[in-house]
Amino acid sequence: VEGEHLIQEAYMAGFLQMVLWQKDVPYQDIETYQVSADIIEKLSNVKSNQGMIGVCRFQRLDALNHHVLLLDGIQDPGNMGTLIRSAVAFNFDTIVVEQCVDLYNAKVIRATQGAIFKINLIEMPILSFMDHHPNITYMATDLSATDSVIHESKQPLGLILGNEGAGVRSSLLNKANQTIKIQMTHTESLNVAVAGSILMYELGGVK
Amino acid sequence: VEGEHLIQEAYMAGFLQMVLWQKDVPYQDIETYQVSADIIEKLSNVKSNQGMIGVCRFQRLDALNHHVLLLDGIQDPGNMGTLIRSAVAFNFDTIVVEQCVDLYNAKVIRATQGAIFKINLIEMPILSFMDHHPNITYMATDLSATDSVIHESKQPLGLILGNEGAGVRSSLLNKANQTIKIQMTHTESLNVAVAGSILMYELGGVK
Repeated sequence: VEGEHLIQEAYMAGFLQMVLWQKDVPYQDIETYQVSADIIEKLSNVKSNQGMIGVCRFQRLDALNHHVLLLDGIQDPGNMGTLIRSAVAFNFDTIVVEQCVDLYNAKVIRATQGAIFKINLIEMPILSFMDHHPNITYMATDLSATDSVIHESKQPLGLILGNEGAGVRSSLLNKANQTIKIQMTHTESLNVAVAGSILMYELGGVK
Repeated sequence: VEGEHLIQEAYMAGFLQMVLWQKDVPYQDIETYQVSADIIEKLSNVKSNQGMIGVCRFQRLDALNHHVLLLDGIQDPGNMGTLIRSAVAFNFDTIVVEQCVDLYNAKVIRATQGAIFKINLIEMPILSFMDHHPNITYMATDLSATDSVIHESKQPLGLILGNEGAGVRSSLLNKANQTIKIQMTHTESLNVAVAGSILMYELGGVK
């Protein structure tokens, strides 16, 4: 991770393992190295780096599964990061991903604004997850759905979102308890991060 | 604009003036040129182009001002395009921009998915717009607002969103009729395109 804000978020969440910094490092209890600007520049993914790199361990949180977001083929790193950020904001505790952009892609991490350290991330086939968790009420977005009212919001619940172009696979739509479309006008569809965030806002019990 | 979908949207909205195409052009009533792959590649902004470029005129729509989105310093082209797309979907008719990324940036246009041809876009100082339209009820997002309930949703209404880092300028916050913060947990803020889309979903009268 790069930049003071993300390193601080990783530190507070207990994921930070090592810091490389041009100046004095403010953390006492973390393995630290003071390094040259050249080394930071080699490691950095951004044009103008902030002179610091944090190294984090992968997450190994226990599945909570009260509010689960299931992502089927999200490809854009900005959308993925924004969905993780909104999931945390609206009280979703677990994200299951299948055939998505790499969760540890630098653009994904940046777009999460540190939220990636606050949620349980699982990579597995969504159908298997659904088979293993039949107690969850699953809702999937579908542009051909006639329903725009949320009938079921009892916990545990799962919200399934699909690929930017193709949407949710039909095998998942068939298995979901409800398919839903957000009401809109003059246009065919919403950005997937926007649609997912609106539904999490409605379903997460925070508003 | 590039790609069949955007060119078709521009055509239907009456903005398409000229088409450059490698194959036969399907439009009879538009100035067209059949050109080589080299020419398309020179003009294209994307890695793998679809072999066609449309040339559009700038928009000159009349201001409608029933539902107005006011953008103060939005810098990310993806956020700008997504906000335009959501504004159209949720029945906002006018967007006023000040100190934002160029509306005709190729990434902005792509992220709108054609919605840019369906809304009234005005570039002017937001304070001047507010002075000239005192009949509009203005609502601004503010992370230090205590209010998370929408009191006023009577038309005409204006929603003010701010820069990704700095938020809405204090001069605009002071002039707004209400400041509002979307309820969230575990995190400090939402992506601006997500926050704006949720509020337009609540305010646009479409849901």
